[in-house]
Amino acid sequence: MTPLTPTDQLFLWLEKRQQPMHVGGLQLFSFPDGAPDNYVSQLAEQLRRQCEVTHPFNQRLSHRLGQPVWVDDGHLDLEHHFRFEALPTPGRIRELLSFVSAEHSHPMDRERPMWEVHLIEGLEDRQFALYTKIHHSLVDGVSAMRMATRMLSDNPNEQGMPPIWDLPCRPRDDREPGGLSLWRSVAHVLDLSGRQLGTIPSVAKELLKTIHQARRDPTYDSIFHAPRCVLNQKITGSRRFAAQSWCLKRIRAVCEAYGTTVNDVVTAMCAAALRTYLMNQDALPDKPLVAFVPVSLRQDESSGGNQVGVILANLHTDVHKGGERLLNIHHSMEAAKARYRHMSPEEIVNYTALTLAPAAFHLLTGLAPKWQTFNVVISNVPGPSKPLYWNGARLEGMYPASIAMDRLALNMTLTSYNDQVEFGLIGCRRTLPSLQRMLDYLEQGLEDLESDAGL
Amino acid sequence: MTPLTPTDQLFLWLEKRQQPMHVGGLQLFSFPDGAPDNYVSQLAEQLRRQCEVTHPFNQRLSHRLGQPVWVDDGHLDLEHHFRFEALPTPGRIRELLSFVSAEHSHPMDRERPMWEVHLIEGLEDRQFALYTKIHHSLVDGVSAMRMATRMLSDNPNEQGMPPIWDLPCRPRDDREPGGLSLWRSVAHVLDLSGRQLGTIPSVAKELLKTIHQARRDPTYDSIFHAPRCVLNQKITGSRRFAAQSWCLKRIRAVCEAYGTTVNDVVTAMCAAALRTYLMNQDALPDKPLVAFVPVSLRQDESSGGNQVGVILANLHTDVHKGGERLLNIHHSMEAAKARYRHMSPEEIVNYTALTLAPAAFHLLTGLAPKWQTFNVVISNVPGPSKPLYWNGARLEGMYPASIAMDRLALNMTLTSYNDQVEFGLIGCRRTLPSLQRMLDYLEQGLEDLESDAGL
Repeated sequence: MTPLTPTDQLFLWLEKRQQPMHVGGLQLFSFPDGAPDNYVSQLAEQLRRQCEVTHPFNQRLSHRLGQPVWVDDGHLDLEHHFRFEALPTPGRIRELLSFVSAEHSHPMDRERPMWEVHLIEGLEDRQFALYTKIHHSLVDGVSAMRMATRMLSDNPNEQGMPPIWDLPCRPRDDREPGGLSLWRSVAHVLDLSGRQLGTIPSVAKELLKTIHQARRDPTYDSIFHAPRCVLNQKITGSRRFAAQSWCLKRIRAVCEAYGTTVNDVVTAMCAAALRTYLMNQDALPDKPLVAFVPVSLRQDESSGGNQVGVILANLHTDVHKGGERLLNIHHSMEAAKARYRHMSPEEIVNYTALTLAPAAFHLLTGLAPKWQTFNVVISNVPGPSKPLYWNGARLEGMYPASIAMDRLALNMTLTSYNDQVEFGLIGCRRTLPSLQRMLDYLEQGLEDLESDAGL
Repeated sequence: MTPLTPTDQLFLWLEKRQQPMHVGGLQLFSFPDGAPDNYVSQLAEQLRRQCEVTHPFNQRLSHRLGQPVWVDDGHLDLEHHFRFEALPTPGRIRELLSFVSAEHSHPMDRERPMWEVHLIEGLEDRQFALYTKIHHSLVDGVSAMRMATRMLSDNPNEQGMPPIWDLPCRPRDDREPGGLSLWRSVAHVLDLSGRQLGTIPSVAKELLKTIHQARRDPTYDSIFHAPRCVLNQKITGSRRFAAQSWCLKRIRAVCEAYGTTVNDVVTAMCAAALRTYLMNQDALPDKPLVAFVPVSLRQDESSGGNQVGVILANLHTDVHKGGERLLNIHHSMEAAKARYRHMSPEEIVNYTALTLAPAAFHLLTGLAPKWQTFNVVISNVPGPSKPLYWNGARLEGMYPASIAMDRLALNMTLTSYNDQVEFGLIGCRRTLPSLQRMLDYLEQGLEDLESDAGL
């Protein structure tokens, strides 16, 4: 029996029908060489027999003395958690994304350990997929991705590799914050780690205090300058998931041509896609959109470590030319990082608090935003740099599916894998119709940068 | 804009994560003669183009002056409502029931018209299925079944038949109570039809008044005599759906041998299955189980009309021999019907009120039952008696999937089709593990009756 941390309680409190608080990941595999046509159903048979379930996958929610706690589930029903499913004809990526969109819309059953693994057959070209869904109170997105990677090997000949729910326990490691989720940051900022949360109102009150202090301080005034946008409406309960891989080589070539970082280029791709998407709906604000972007504060960008700050990135969506927009984004990001370099750790905490407080306040209270600080979340999580395999099946791509929230109807999460950059977009299907078109607009954004640079 | 009736409001109020309030139906079809192998995906393409959506499928929930109302959905997204899906290998009925179990567990998105139609390919033997899910506030189970039948034709050559969401409107007809749903009866009994509901507590208070009156009246005392049972625990959010067809001929032969009705025999099959299921869990109460059974009060049983009463049927689960159990059930049912025949319409209303009030009270308040009046709901809804077709595809079977509720973890709904009796069981997967075994126990129950009668 383990009491939930205050942050994990936040994820439960925030959950409602139209705002489920689970994260997901889609992994695309190709059949091992020489595998029979019924390879995936054989795999399903094997996985069904994998009844050992390790921490945290054996933990279900319970209550003791009014406090939420994790307890071992004595009656774990693997058939509920592991599901073998199939795509309809013709089994393209389109049908796969449709499938994940529907599954990611369904809230989880709180009476059981809150995770599901869907093994999906029926894809074209001797491929199959795994869609994994875990409640954010059980594990955060970055840890989930790390576990999904830990399941794999760089050796194509390795066999007997367990599924994610039967990995050897490394509980401490999995709980370490590897990236900056909005809510973990809120908890950190309010210093909730050491004490039990009383009620949502008390958290909201502390946030409001922070906001009012900031509004009196002219140096922080720029934080409240994001425009109002359709991205910041109330959401409904259905989701659209869109995902695609881009070749890292193409992105690196653009980086070199403009003298920017990879993160600047992918942020500029997002900016271009948002601009086109909103323009087509006649909904692009005059003022530039602002993105919440967690960044590594290490100089070399190489490590996945946890020294992370939040940048409110001006996406310069008012700029017409792609190349100019990228350079503007680069300069804003550099300026923000430079500011961090001159900050003490305490100042970084305060600045982060301020950045997050308004969004957190409005999410907790359900009130319409008075202070719009950002329009969209764009996070880039480092991933594995070598080809990986699961019992001989090569991982072809891995795409994160994060959380859409009231007033934050779109989440763009990226990761890297081998020689690819993997985009996973999740949005409210009603607030943001035809979200899948963003994939074309992302490609178009990259092509524009390439042609502006004469590549 | 149409205000919700008080009964429809009840369905919304009662809904919670672990108790979704939608009904479903599974229809199994075989391919038309000479249809190509990709018949189902062609059908999916056609259905995707069927963007006309008629009443009530175009109605979504909204609020005006604090009251819930139905409004036309101006942005209906057919892709959300109509889904083309596939079963994993080997595509047996087992995989189909698994699929429906998972889908029936998911609560619906209230921001949209609350219905879904799933077209399912990948079944063995050139078959396909339609699983239709509709919120009980939009349409009741019997009306839903009637609409699903109205979609079909007895002419195998008829083409151009629309899907259920594009049927010509017959709104009045679809709202007429064709059977007795527990909640429509509650509303009727409390005479809620004419006035707006205030709050759940006010309804609960009226129910409590009814119960207390009854407890002072010795003639109604027998109503409070159902035993406590695992069927009457709190439920969780995941479901198991089990369904199977039985040949009407076999059941009729048993009827003739014992001199009972078809309804007596199917009730006895349910009693036998419940007895075996509970005995295997060492959970069979000493006292016999009691079922809530809506029955037609017409003499001839032939018509599907709406003169319906509720019988609290003693299932005689304490009796060892199947034949003896059937005869006991038959005598109890006859006695109950005879009592109805001597009642005035007002007395029938009062008796029904009393039968329902305790269960309704405990469901509304969430309190543990003080007065257990019945353990399980068994309803038998008349269905079509001729083979039916949908654009040339023959309907092979149709199975209702109803609602499991707190303290009523199992619902057994039956219907008839052509020369078959169709059983659809829905239960809480956690409270009632391995519910699918009930199908074997139903068959065993029928076989016992056959061998006892020397058939």
